[in-house]
Amino acid sequence: MNTYKNFSQLLLKKHVEHLNSFPSKKAVHHFIDELLALLFPHFSEQAQYLSVDEIKGKMSVLRRELTHILHSLEGRMHNSAGGVTEIFFEQLPHVYELLWSDAQAIYEGDPAAETLDEVISAYPGFYAIYAYRIAHIFYEAGVPVFPRLITEYAHYKSGVDIHPGARIGHSFFIDHATGIVIGETTEIGNNVKIYQGVTIGALSVSKALAQKKRHPTIEDNVIIYSSATILGGETVIGHDSIIGGNVWLTKSVPPFSIVYNTSEIRVRSKLEKEQALMFHI
Amino acid sequence: MNTYKNFSQLLLKKHVEHLNSFPSKKAVHHFIDELLALLFPHFSEQAQYLSVDEIKGKMSVLRRELTHILHSLEGRMHNSAGGVTEIFFEQLPHVYELLWSDAQAIYEGDPAAETLDEVISAYPGFYAIYAYRIAHIFYEAGVPVFPRLITEYAHYKSGVDIHPGARIGHSFFIDHATGIVIGETTEIGNNVKIYQGVTIGALSVSKALAQKKRHPTIEDNVIIYSSATILGGETVIGHDSIIGGNVWLTKSVPPFSIVYNTSEIRVRSKLEKEQALMFHI
Amino acid sequence: MNTYKNFSQLLLKKHVEHLNSFPSKKAVHHFIDELLALLFPHFSEQAQYLSVDEIKGKMSVLRRELTHILHSLEGRMHNSAGGVTEIFFEQLPHVYELLWSDAQAIYEGDPAAETLDEVISAYPGFYAIYAYRIAHIFYEAGVPVFPRLITEYAHYKSGVDIHPGARIGHSFFIDHATGIVIGETTEIGNNVKIYQGVTIGALSVSKALAQKKRHPTIEDNVIIYSSATILGGETVIGHDSIIGGNVWLTKSVPPFSIVYNTSEIRVRSKLEKEQALMFHI
Amino acid sequence: MNTYKNFSQLLLKKHVEHLNSFPSKKAVHHFIDELLALLFPHFSEQAQYLSVDEIKGKMSVLRRELTHILHSLEGRMHNSAGGVTEIFFEQLPHVYELLWSDAQAIYEGDPAAETLDEVISAYPGFYAIYAYRIAHIFYEAGVPVFPRLITEYAHYKSGVDIHPGARIGHSFFIDHATGIVIGETTEIGNNVKIYQGVTIGALSVSKALAQKKRHPTIEDNVIIYSSATILGGETVIGHDSIIGGNVWLTKSVPPFSIVYNTSEIRVRSKLEKEQALMFHI
Amino acid sequence: MNTYKNFSQLLLKKHVEHLNSFPSKKAVHHFIDELLALLFPHFSEQAQYLSVDEIKGKMSVLRRELTHILHSLEGRMHNSAGGVTEIFFEQLPHVYELLWSDAQAIYEGDPAAETLDEVISAYPGFYAIYAYRIAHIFYEAGVPVFPRLITEYAHYKSGVDIHPGARIGHSFFIDHATGIVIGETTEIGNNVKIYQGVTIGALSVSKALAQKKRHPTIEDNVIIYSSATILGGETVIGHDSIIGGNVWLTKSVPPFSIVYNTSEIRVRSKLEKEQALMFHI
Amino acid sequence: MNTYKNFSQLLLKKHVEHLNSFPSKKAVHHFIDELLALLFPHFSEQAQYLSVDEIKGKMSVLRRELTHILHSLEGRMHNSAGGVTEIFFEQLPHVYELLWSDAQAIYEGDPAAETLDEVISAYPGFYAIYAYRIAHIFYEAGVPVFPRLITEYAHYKSGVDIHPGARIGHSFFIDHATGIVIGETTEIGNNVKIYQGVTIGALSVSKALAQKKRHPTIEDNVIIYSSATILGGETVIGHDSIIGGNVWLTKSVPPFSIVYNTSEIRVRSKLEKEQALMFHI
Repeated sequence: MNTYKNFSQLLLKKHVEHLNSFPSKKAVHHFIDELLALLFPHFSEQAQYLSVDEIKGKMSVLRRELTHILHSLEGRMHNSAGGVTEIFFEQLPHVYELLWSDAQAIYEGDPAAETLDEVISAYPGFYAIYAYRIAHIFYEAGVPVFPRLITEYAHYKSGVDIHPGARIGHSFFIDHATGIVIGETTEIGNNVKIYQGVTIGALSVSKALAQKKRHPTIEDNVIIYSSATILGGETVIGHDSIIGGNVWLTKSVPPFSIVYNTSEIRVRSKLEKEQALMFHI
Repeated sequence: MNTYKNFSQLLLKKHVEHLNSFPSKKAVHHFIDELLALLFPHFSEQAQYLSVDEIKGKMSVLRRELTHILHSLEGRMHNSAGGVTEIFFEQLPHVYELLWSDAQAIYEGDPAAETLDEVISAYPGFYAIYAYRIAHIFYEAGVPVFPRLITEYAHYKSGVDIHPGARIGHSFFIDHATGIVIGETTEIGNNVKIYQGVTIGALSVSKALAQKKRHPTIEDNVIIYSSATILGGETVIGHDSIIGGNVWLTKSVPPFSIVYNTSEIRVRSKLEKEQALMFHI
Repeated sequence: MNTYKNFSQLLLKKHVEHLNSFPSKKAVHHFIDELLALLFPHFSEQAQYLSVDEIKGKMSVLRRELTHILHSLEGRMHNSAGGVTEIFFEQLPHVYELLWSDAQAIYEGDPAAETLDEVISAYPGFYAIYAYRIAHIFYEAGVPVFPRLITEYAHYKSGVDIHPGARIGHSFFIDHATGIVIGETTEIGNNVKIYQGVTIGALSVSKALAQKKRHPTIEDNVIIYSSATILGGETVIGHDSIIGGNVWLTKSVPPFSIVYNTSEIRVRSKLEKEQALMFHI
Repeated sequence: MNTYKNFSQLLLKKHVEHLNSFPSKKAVHHFIDELLALLFPHFSEQAQYLSVDEIKGKMSVLRRELTHILHSLEGRMHNSAGGVTEIFFEQLPHVYELLWSDAQAIYEGDPAAETLDEVISAYPGFYAIYAYRIAHIFYEAGVPVFPRLITEYAHYKSGVDIHPGARIGHSFFIDHATGIVIGETTEIGNNVKIYQGVTIGALSVSKALAQKKRHPTIEDNVIIYSSATILGGETVIGHDSIIGGNVWLTKSVPPFSIVYNTSEIRVRSKLEKEQALMFHI
Repeated sequence: MNTYKNFSQLLLKKHVEHLNSFPSKKAVHHFIDELLALLFPHFSEQAQYLSVDEIKGKMSVLRRELTHILHSLEGRMHNSAGGVTEIFFEQLPHVYELLWSDAQAIYEGDPAAETLDEVISAYPGFYAIYAYRIAHIFYEAGVPVFPRLITEYAHYKSGVDIHPGARIGHSFFIDHATGIVIGETTEIGNNVKIYQGVTIGALSVSKALAQKKRHPTIEDNVIIYSSATILGGETVIGHDSIIGGNVWLTKSVPPFSIVYNTSEIRVRSKLEKEQALMFHI
Repeated sequence: MNTYKNFSQLLLKKHVEHLNSFPSKKAVHHFIDELLALLFPHFSEQAQYLSVDEIKGKMSVLRRELTHILHSLEGRMHNSAGGVTEIFFEQLPHVYELLWSDAQAIYEGDPAAETLDEVISAYPGFYAIYAYRIAHIFYEAGVPVFPRLITEYAHYKSGVDIHPGARIGHSFFIDHATGIVIGETTEIGNNVKIYQGVTIGALSVSKALAQKKRHPTIEDNVIIYSSATILGGETVIGHDSIIGGNVWLTKSVPPFSIVYNTSEIRVRSKLEKEQALMFHI
């Protein structure tokens, strides 16, 4: 009973210490969903296109919502909420074009995709890129926390975690996408293809390195197959290279490289099943 | 300001170009959820079983919903909406039996599973197989887009991406499931077990190959351990084989094979932690 | 038509056979969400802290909800619903402290994290640990099914699957988290770091082994990099060891070990792209 | 502060004293809404008719809901929850016919009504009769509280308060309906028309009279115009009578009577407006 | 049991006979609510004013919704759905001005009203006039059923039933409003005040009279006090007249009349309470 | 088209002029609903009583909600939002007792009421009194608009319109309630009974009289039957009087009076129905 009371007091103490000026997650998710439905009506409830007046109206509502979200962060960034909102809507048309280039890249790269609309509406990879590109605008504008809430929302929906700080060129291809992790200081060129399970990460992670480039640079036209891991701030994957699946790579490779595991697999034939299990594969 | 107006016009142009006859995602998700709650009441809100009249009533509602969804696609498929609905409900009892065989396989294969009901209600692998088997009926009936919306919904919920075009036998085991990707022309036999992070994919992905078999064939009783990658349309994994974890495999192996990495790991003892990080593992 | 009728009967038969005394998934999810919003108001809709009366009031509501959920399981556990509720709230303050230690570990281990609040609200790894630690209390109290419904909910939200039966020390670090699987009889010490795609699993999975230790032991201060796989109930990773990425490990290593793949990668320079694809990497 | 604590204790005391075995208002409203949408699909969300299987399915769901509501009252009625459910569904077809006779009466009696469907979907009078006729079945079956919750719900929606205990013949006409009050022991014959603001009430209301007939009897084919008030358990309005508006009637009248106010109105011509107000009309 | 089956069949028969081309009530209510929130943002969820783009956007959405509702009625009206939508939005500015004149009239007529905003947001009378004026546009355009669904929605919310066919001038005052009924062929001039419980109705209601003027004409500047009843198609209340409360009036009165009951009330003093009740007042 | 643009501009102009600092209606309704469910758990969703901690917790939430609502009005009242909140919660226990006295009065006065709980949960009269008593506290504390939003919400739900400014003693009885209107400066004593359709109003309503007593005084133990109208600021109904139904009263009566219409009704026997209608009753 005594403990019980103390726990309430402890909770209160923690509540008071934390949670000053934090945007509501619900508001963030609503903004991201509504913006997506405006840019790509495939995601709207009715799946239908809009009139110019509706488009402008929705954009105006989004401005208001965005400014409202940013207000809660005003003490913690250089720009005003209104200023960031301006920056965002100035950059949106450019990002919109990038997103169409991404959709095109996925469509061309996956034989299973029948139409561009299918890519937009049914590919988690496209969704993850959308969220990243939106979040990146805010990251560049010096907004704290908010960009991470956006990409984490996409992570939850798609299984892809692209840090808002990463820099990614046009025509970026990720499709099934699950399990991709791309770190904060990663730089990725144009026409890069990345398959599921790939990590573009840091070698060793320590707080002191927060301001340094800790993640690799991937140049134009690189393809990285599933479950490959590429680490380190000084690692550069030269343009037009191909990185095989399940590769663990911590150093640079020149342009036009093909990287693959030297280890060959071994195949034992005609083994009894019972033995196999005992053998502790 | 000028740009702003142009952007609205650009959005409008894109809206008009796309989104003709597309099923509403919300309608698709509702259908999939309600069908699941009918087949496995563990997923219904009350978690309780139904009377025969309720079962028939719900099936009738589902027919209506399904026909409604399919109407929006009628210009793009050979069958009528009504015709596809008929096909679907004819095949449903067979698929239902397959799903019980899958649940049984998971129950028997995972010592941690206490009851069949636990498998059905709490295993993401089972959910993913459910969605795939439903989507596969529509894929076979020549319905565009809709099957992908179904499996992408399951992907979002379970982290498993099985293309509706894959052919999978009975008693299919996937449990924790996260990160599994199975491509469009994959063929999987009976009693196959696949662990998390496994990719059954294509070697090189180019639009020209859309009509060809691009993904492997996995024969009966094969086990594939976590994070293995098996690629290529001509790759056949012979029956009763075992593929070890983290294996990268792009060629066929005969029946009863055991495949594992030849690379041994190296262990350095008593290293200082500080050095380890400098050493760039 | 005949089949149609039979199918209804079949569904009914299955409905009746299953679904005795099962907690509603909706109720379970609500409990987990509300408890989280109480412990960490970052997850509440308003993102604001509460008064002591509100805290106590919410805790009282949660007690009621919990007891209600547990009632449906009373025939299948040793304790009464009320008894388990008591146990749970006694242990909650201790678990709460562990969770702050986990948040602190993530904050310190990830240079990209700007504040502790960001970790709590935007890191899927933290969410997964939260759900696991809550579920573990019920697992220890002998409650069936319910713990799995909790961790599966977290799996669905975060892509991380930690079995409620695992034992995990304080200051546990997982961040991007997607694709991590940790088995039922795993034991993990203090200050352990695990990256995305890691599996801590069983070597061979057969129903007969349900009561045995089937998963590895990870001692204090171990770091396991992305996509490593560690298997087997007798495998012990000695304290202060580092396991490299994409490693497949089925035997014990002593303390202070560094484990990494011996296989080196091969790099072919200046290859034509067309050839690369023909080469079937 | 002291008071504050006492008030919480006071609330608790009141909470404990009251609220034993009470049906949830939300459940009652849901049952009434769903039943209405089944009987008259004009009230369903899609405004469309159903298949026989859907009809049976919904009826089965309603049986379940009803039994669940009645369980909470089992200690306070002679029949079991299941027994009352049986009675209700046996009587429903008869009540359904009565409701169509009521709709027909309104349609024929109101020149403004264009179709029977308009009457059903847009006349509050019809809605109020529906709720009354349903509630009356439960009243007759000896169910406490529940019938009142039903008619009060209709009162809230339509402004008409018909006590579930009243007995009302077929082809009952009320249209605009607002402000009609009909007491517990009222008896109304066939083909009766009642306009807005009419009260069929008790003369003096005292607890001791609870078991006596306290409200009037209205015989067949009577018309009662707006804002008339008819009171008293011994008052009988003979068949084929017409009661004028704003009449206050506390005694019986024979068949074929016309009842109207003897008071004539006075008309002052050409009065100045200012004076009129001073005149205290 | 036999009956039960028959009842399902009976329900089906009724379902098929009725409900061809009917607008969804939910859609109608949504349209009316959203239009109101656009015209008077007091009713919007945030209670805040909008940008011009938002206004235009919402108007565009409303056009779409309206056209959609009207489609279901196209077989039953002379204009196309699109044509009626055009007519509606042409007339809307005029109706908007009338509504401000009504609000002004209520504000000036009720000493209790503190601001115009209070009238708009908290007076049921204003709400009822709003719904009537909107519905009247559709009535004039020859749309069936829809206008009645609108006014019935207002009736349910405000207790006021104004038939969409009535013609009402500017600056119409109704405040508390409950129980007011105004019939289809009523004509009301400018600056008229009507209090609660007033009926402006027909003398005798028979289907044959559907095309005739059945309800009174109320000229400019008339005041009608609570619970008065004015009936008959030939009844004309001359301008600047005052009709007292509880008056029953079935013939015309000239301009500047004051009409009141000649019956005086009788007051018995010092009666014992017990006697009073026995006296059967 | 030109008009269309102008209308948008007009709407904008009106939007800007109005709607400064207005509480959200949704917030007001939520507060009133939650407070009711706290005071009388019959209105809570689960219809169950609460623990002391829950009671305190909910009260704390309500304080927060109330303060939030009042903030939007701070420029327009003498007290601070916090100050009014304090006043409100100080007065709440007293009002709570009054409400139990009201429920008791209804229970005793209506033979149809079976329990006190039935009165609380199913009598619109009780609901209306609840809302009035709550609103009255805010009226007395000088809060603008908010009290009216509360009583209008009750009006919409119950058809009863009691102005928050009215003063009403304990044990106030209204039951069916529809159509009751009680004006701002009305004073009502203890143990008063008022039936449906009664107006306690002003004689002539002009803005200049806003600060004067414009409505009657009703002394203790008075009963007013249905559809009576009592008007005028100087009208006093002496204690223990009875006012008959449909009476129109604009002057004072002494204590113990019985007031009823002198006009007798006339009854014509054996009239043919056809004639009756021609007779134009």
